[in-house]
Amino acid sequence: MTAAHREVSAEQAAREEELVERVARSFDTCRDPRLKELMVGLVRHVHAYIRETRLTEEEWREGIAFLTAAGHITDDRRQEFILLSDVLGASMQTIAVNNQAYGDATEATVVGPFFVEGAPEIANGGDMSFGAPGEPCWVEGTVVGPDGKPLPGARIEVWEADEDGRYDVQYDDERTSARAHLFTDGEGKYRFWGITPTPYPIPHDGPVGRMLEAVGRSPMRASHLHFMVSYEGCRTLVTHIFVRGDALLGSDAVFGVKESLVRDFQRQPAGTPTPDGRAVDGTWSRTRFDIALAPAGA
Amino acid sequence: MTAAHREVSAEQAAREEELVERVARSFDTCRDPRLKELMVGLVRHVHAYIRETRLTEEEWREGIAFLTAAGHITDDRRQEFILLSDVLGASMQTIAVNNQAYGDATEATVVGPFFVEGAPEIANGGDMSFGAPGEPCWVEGTVVGPDGKPLPGARIEVWEADEDGRYDVQYDDERTSARAHLFTDGEGKYRFWGITPTPYPIPHDGPVGRMLEAVGRSPMRASHLHFMVSYEGCRTLVTHIFVRGDALLGSDAVFGVKESLVRDFQRQPAGTPTPDGRAVDGTWSRTRFDIALAPAGA
Repeated sequence: MTAAHREVSAEQAAREEELVERVARSFDTCRDPRLKELMVGLVRHVHAYIRETRLTEEEWREGIAFLTAAGHITDDRRQEFILLSDVLGASMQTIAVNNQAYGDATEATVVGPFFVEGAPEIANGGDMSFGAPGEPCWVEGTVVGPDGKPLPGARIEVWEADEDGRYDVQYDDERTSARAHLFTDGEGKYRFWGITPTPYPIPHDGPVGRMLEAVGRSPMRASHLHFMVSYEGCRTLVTHIFVRGDALLGSDAVFGVKESLVRDFQRQPAGTPTPDGRAVDGTWSRTRFDIALAPAGA
Repeated sequence: MTAAHREVSAEQAAREEELVERVARSFDTCRDPRLKELMVGLVRHVHAYIRETRLTEEEWREGIAFLTAAGHITDDRRQEFILLSDVLGASMQTIAVNNQAYGDATEATVVGPFFVEGAPEIANGGDMSFGAPGEPCWVEGTVVGPDGKPLPGARIEVWEADEDGRYDVQYDDERTSARAHLFTDGEGKYRFWGITPTPYPIPHDGPVGRMLEAVGRSPMRASHLHFMVSYEGCRTLVTHIFVRGDALLGSDAVFGVKESLVRDFQRQPAGTPTPDGRAVDGTWSRTRFDIALAPAGA
C-alpha cells in the first residue's frame, strides 16, 4: 500500500480493487497462457499506476492526446513509440532482460529507431558512408564465438548518423548512406571505412521531444556507431560503440551507454597513411572493436 | 519479488535495478513535482512489467507495432487509444479514482470515444434522435444538487448509438443524430425523446478488436444511453443508464456497468398514448432517470 492508497476510505479502496480483479478475470477466456500473463500483468500495472498517482481525468486525457500525437507523427521513417520506449529506458531494460551477461560476450544496447532492413552489402574494407558527410573513420576487429574461436562469414550490419546528426532516413530524398552490411573474412576479421561518430539529438520536434523539454532532459545522444552481428547458433548482438572522452557519455538520452562499449577513436593528422592506402584529405580516425558472441538461447 | 525475479542471478538483478534508478534519476531536473511524480511512477511500473514478465524483444516489437497501428487508425472520428484504455478497465479506474462515492450522488461511468462537443440544443420535450433509426423512447427525470434541491438550468448532454449499433460519427456522411443537449426547467426537470438503447460492439476492426479476439473477449457493450450533466459548483457527472434485463450487463466490454445505473425501460404497446401527445407508429418505451450531483471537488 502506498501513501496515496492509504488516503482513500476502505469502501473506496474495495471498489477500486474489485474493478482490478474484474478486469483481470476478463482474460480468463484467453487460451494462450503467455498472452494471458502479459495482458493481466499489464492490467495490474496500469491500474496500480492510476490508483497510486490518483491520476486525474485531465491527466488521463493528456495521456491519450500524447499517444495520439505519437501515433500521428509515426510513419515508415519516424518511429515515435520506439523513441518513447528509449527515453523511458524501457528499450534498454528489455535489452538487459534478454541479453543476460554471458562470460566475455560483448554487451548489447538499444537498436534505436533507425535500423533499416536491406542495407547494401560492402566488401571487407569497403566504405559504408556512401558519401555521408563526416570525418573518415577506419573500423576493424574480429568476431569470435562463445568458445573464443573466430567466426568466418559472420554478418555485420553497421549504421550511423552523419556529422550533421542525421541518419539517411531523416532526409527527404530517399538516399541510402552511412549504412551497410558486410561479412567477416576467413579469419573472422572485418574492416570498413565509416565516419567518426558525432553527437546528435534524437528527433525532438514531436511529443517525445516536448516531454523531454517539459522535464528538463536533454535529447542528445552520446556519439556512437551501431552494430548488429549475427551468426548461426549464436545470440544476435545489437549494440553500439561509443567514443571515449565524449562529454555526453554520462547523460545519454536513451540510457544506452555501457563502459565496455566505450572505445578509443584515435584521430590521425592529415597526411597519415591509411591502412588500405586510400587517399584521405584532412584528418581521419581509427578504432578497433573486437566482438564476442554468446550462444543462442544464452 | 516475483518468481521471475528470483530466477535471475543477483548480478543480473542488480544491473536491472541500477537501470531503473538511473532512469528515475534522469527526471530529477523536472521542476514540476506532479509531472515528475507521474513520469517516475510510469518508469517504475514499465520497468517492473518488463522485468516481471521477462518481456522478449519480439514481444516488445509487437507492443510497438500495436501502438503504431492504434495511432494510425485514430483520427477525428475514431479514437483507438480511448478504446484501449476502456477495454483494459483503465478508463473506469480513472473514473473511480476521480468520482469517489458521495452520499446519494449518481454514480459515474466511462465517457467512451463518441462524445462530441457542440451537439445541437433541443427544448425540453424535444427529440434528440434527429431521425436515427430505433424505437422511440421517452426519458424523464429531475436533477438535484448535493442538498437534494432541484437545479433549474442544469446542462444535460445526451448521446447514444442507433438501433444498427452505430453513432452518427461512425457514418461517412457527416450526419448529426442521436445526440443533443438540453437544460432542466425551472423545477429541475427534464424530458426528451430518444431511442431505446440496443447493444452494439465497440469498433473491433482495429488493433483493439484483434486483441479482444486473441484473448477470447467479446467486443459487445451492454445497451446504454450516455449522459453528461453539469451545473456550476457541482462535480460534472459523466454516466450512462443501462437497460434492466439486458443479457450483456455482466460482460460489458469496457466494465462500465454499475447496478445503480440499471433502469427499467418499460415497453409500451402500439397505440399507447404518449406523455406529450406525440403520434408514434408502433411500440415505444419510457424510462426515468433522476440525477443527483455531488459538489465540485468532492
